[in-house]
Amino acid sequence: MDFDTSTLKFNEAGLIPAIAQDATTGDVLMMAWMNAQAVTQTLETGRVTYWSRSRQSFWIKGDTSGHVQELVELRIDCDRDCLLVKVHQTGAACHTGRRSCFYTLVEDGVERITLDVMDDE
Amino acid sequence: MDFDTSTLKFNEAGLIPAIAQDATTGDVLMMAWMNAQAVTQTLETGRVTYWSRSRQSFWIKGDTSGHVQELVELRIDCDRDCLLVKVHQTGAACHTGRRSCFYTLVEDGVERITLDVMDDE
Repeated sequence: MDFDTSTLKFNEAGLIPAIAQDATTGDVLMMAWMNAQAVTQTLETGRVTYWSRSRQSFWIKGDTSGHVQELVELRIDCDRDCLLVKVHQTGAACHTGRRSCFYTLVEDGVERITLDVMDDE
Repeated sequence: MDFDTSTLKFNEAGLIPAIAQDATTGDVLMMAWMNAQAVTQTLETGRVTYWSRSRQSFWIKGDTSGHVQELVELRIDCDRDCLLVKVHQTGAACHTGRRSCFYTLVEDGVERITLDVMDDE
């Protein structure tokens, strides 16, 4: 059965935020945006697909970098305006080469980088 | 030292998405929005504070419901346009009375509710 994306609440740009979480470790890896077709493609292909706001194009995660996100499950929040995708992440989720985009910790007002760039696999 | 919120990227409405994650279990609890002052208040008070887009007012999580989010750590993503707050959550994070807002799983195109409403503490 096909999931009806028209039941989701997209913003004025037709996008919905999607939080990617490592299905194994529970680490939050990144947040990016999907349009309706990206949601459908993600569900149909099992490959997490975003909409790149900067490039204005589909962004099949890992197609260029090899850092694929294999969909484990997709969840919708209570307001239907945010998605959570649990994934099997190959390599770095972050374009900086770090496992997660959330590598900057604010501690007593000061920023500290808590993750190293991963070695290439 | 005070954290300089002007280094963050807010959207055209002056808001930044904040993902709340249970610091103990790793569960993603909710996603809501902060403006610059909400970020500052969250860091200064240790009580997670959002900006309610529907009410156009500060929303000190738990002030009405008692379902407080005590800040454990605040992280910034690589693009500086999304925050991750790890929290100690009292009771339900979701207004429906569920622990997390992401209680709706999409499975083979069909939705399934995976979390029960919590008993009142």
